[in-house]
Amino acid sequence: MGRVVVEIMPKPEILDPQGKAVAGALPRLGFGRFTGVRQGKRFELEVEGEVTPEVLEEAARAAEVLLSNPVIEDVVRVAPVEADAATTTLAGGTT
Amino acid sequence: MGRVVVEIMPKPEILDPQGKAVAGALPRLGFGRFTGVRQGKRFELEVEGEVTPEVLEEAARAAEVLLSNPVIEDVVRVAPVEADAATTTLAGGTT
Repeated sequence: MGRVVVEIMPKPEILDPQGKAVAGALPRLGFGRFTGVRQGKRFELEVEGEVTPEVLEEAARAAEVLLSNPVIEDVVRVAPVEADAATTTLAGGTT
Repeated sequence: MGRVVVEIMPKPEILDPQGKAVAGALPRLGFGRFTGVRQGKRFELEVEGEVTPEVLEEAARAAEVLLSNPVIEDVVRVAPVEADAATTTLAGGTT
């Protein structure tokens, strides 16, 4: 069983009230280091069998057609999920 | 200016109605290949300067304290955003 991750973010020029709310809350909780926050979505799509280039191609089309709103959002990433992706990566992860 | 990406998914044992709705819609739109969908969140946190290990550490704490609900969600990734991350990666991306 394979999984594809699809990541979607609000376009830079679009106001992001959820991100703004988080950005406002962070310093109140002692996290003063962060100057801005944007909030988007992350989907995991499951397929039977391996994640082939055809699967990625179909996931990319689904991302444009159904998972995102192309007027206000960008699909920033469509990629296979590695087996160990469910563990927190504190450093060394590549995007 | 550096950015940290924080990715959060519903725990596997938690019902995910948003993901279920997407999974039901995909075959109706001609995407018959996908057998399951989970929907989570993706945050980008901005910092002035570089993303140091201390920044990642603080982002990981913020992810546990504010960005996620640890009862129903897992933080699956805390990592620096590479400069080219705003472009769609159709293949070769590692998670």
